[in-house]
Amino acid sequence: MAPPLGLVAGGGRMPLRVADAAAKAGRPLFCVLLDGFADPAEYRTYPHEVVALGRIGHMVGLMRARGIRDLVLAGRVTRPSLLGFRFDAEGVRLVAKLGRAALFGGDDRLLSAVLRVMREEGFRPLGAQEVLDDLLVAEGVLGAHAPDADARADIARGIAVARALGTADVGQGCVVQQGLVLGVEAIEGTDALLARCGTLRREGPGGVLVKLVKPRQDVRADLPVIGPDTVRNAAGAGLAGIAIEARAGHAGTLVVDRAETIAAADAAGLFLIAIRPDLFSTSEGAS
Amino acid sequence: MAPPLGLVAGGGRMPLRVADAAAKAGRPLFCVLLDGFADPAEYRTYPHEVVALGRIGHMVGLMRARGIRDLVLAGRVTRPSLLGFRFDAEGVRLVAKLGRAALFGGDDRLLSAVLRVMREEGFRPLGAQEVLDDLLVAEGVLGAHAPDADARADIARGIAVARALGTADVGQGCVVQQGLVLGVEAIEGTDALLARCGTLRREGPGGVLVKLVKPRQDVRADLPVIGPDTVRNAAGAGLAGIAIEARAGHAGTLVVDRAETIAAADAAGLFLIAIRPDLFSTSEGAS
Repeated sequence: MAPPLGLVAGGGRMPLRVADAAAKAGRPLFCVLLDGFADPAEYRTYPHEVVALGRIGHMVGLMRARGIRDLVLAGRVTRPSLLGFRFDAEGVRLVAKLGRAALFGGDDRLLSAVLRVMREEGFRPLGAQEVLDDLLVAEGVLGAHAPDADARADIARGIAVARALGTADVGQGCVVQQGLVLGVEAIEGTDALLARCGTLRREGPGGVLVKLVKPRQDVRADLPVIGPDTVRNAAGAGLAGIAIEARAGHAGTLVVDRAETIAAADAAGLFLIAIRPDLFSTSEGAS
Repeated sequence: MAPPLGLVAGGGRMPLRVADAAAKAGRPLFCVLLDGFADPAEYRTYPHEVVALGRIGHMVGLMRARGIRDLVLAGRVTRPSLLGFRFDAEGVRLVAKLGRAALFGGDDRLLSAVLRVMREEGFRPLGAQEVLDDLLVAEGVLGAHAPDADARADIARGIAVARALGTADVGQGCVVQQGLVLGVEAIEGTDALLARCGTLRREGPGGVLVKLVKPRQDVRADLPVIGPDTVRNAAGAGLAGIAIEARAGHAGTLVVDRAETIAAADAAGLFLIAIRPDLFSTSEGAS
């Protein structure tokens, strides 16, 4: 029998879907649930253990004992205070190895460094999209609604903003209405961004959530994610639609529960479009 | 007698201080108060008229009738929906002249375009800092407290983020704690940014508001501003201090009511430092 797939699970639906997919494919699985992020009740049918974020030595030990090699890190994890990490001995060793630059740089650098160390420890990190093959979407309009010319202009502005933010390794999202950047996402998350922009938006139509991959993002962790809740929150904020990044190799914006996400967009009258930022054109004829 | 100074006043203390300074210098003054932004009660001792934002023809007429040539645009104005502008005929003509790019580009492009048109109309736009000579500050620590090494590292990260944001012509501020970007300012304003970051900050010390000039910012309008309220809100959010941009020519972060601002920082235990972003060093010895 193949060794189990290791899943290090943060919050949200994504890691649960990874577990479901592994189970459906008949692949054995072991889940490390990050304390405070993944809900053990949701994983009760899968072998799992709850582990605090800083207990890296314990995580590595649990996975080694099961012969795990393939490893997926998935789900939302907000980096706590360094004081909040409560590292174990192995954790301290790894932190020393990662160095101050990784810890105090952007979140990308931290994740890339963690993945690099995991590789050095003999694991093979995979992206959730390598296990769940329908997370990435092809370029084009999803669902029943398409962006109009104003929305396409807002998307173009959002691409420029997201790219600038990504260069500085900040968030992956922004909201643009009538050319005006209503909000930019840092660590508050997309839901909080959308709630805020609902109160900041101007009279009149429009408003687009743009959520793209950061330029140097590691595709094995922390790709941007949307799902049915994102669509409902965007509708609640009065937006006209959502633009995400289409599949490019193993990268792109991940859509969790695609059918439900598209159905929610159709029901709310929102467009949902997967774009290639470098090739995006504001003219309506283009995809 | 010299023709009056024209003041187009938005919200906040800044335009009122410009009016006070002109009065103190014995210079006649006429204030156009932007409806919904400047409070007429505060300007009752100065000749003024309240005008809606889009009634540009009326503004120009009021100023021409008084022989005004020098013109200061000061104070907070959040760009409303285009539907909210209610342009008069001259306004429509100017909008046509500005073109769609200015209206739908970043806020900087709109302001620069408005100033360019004002110059073409025969006015001479001045920055508030050209009338109030103590708004810009020299490089160095203001007040009793100085940033420590951790704060200096956060300032360096904030400089990188602010520069990336500025390139995309978004906001001027961000909050960084322990290397983590807690929040980025778009149109919600610094006070809302600080309120949000107060709930997002991690355990432990630190947290810095960094507020810098955008790379291509027009120095005659919309320079970043801090004042006593900024300091109090930063203290309320649990931050350790504020970094602003020191005077460089006519540019820099404006400090309104400097003595009161420094006193508020000293009382709250916050540092306040004016930096030169290109020359900033994280080592503690440097200024």
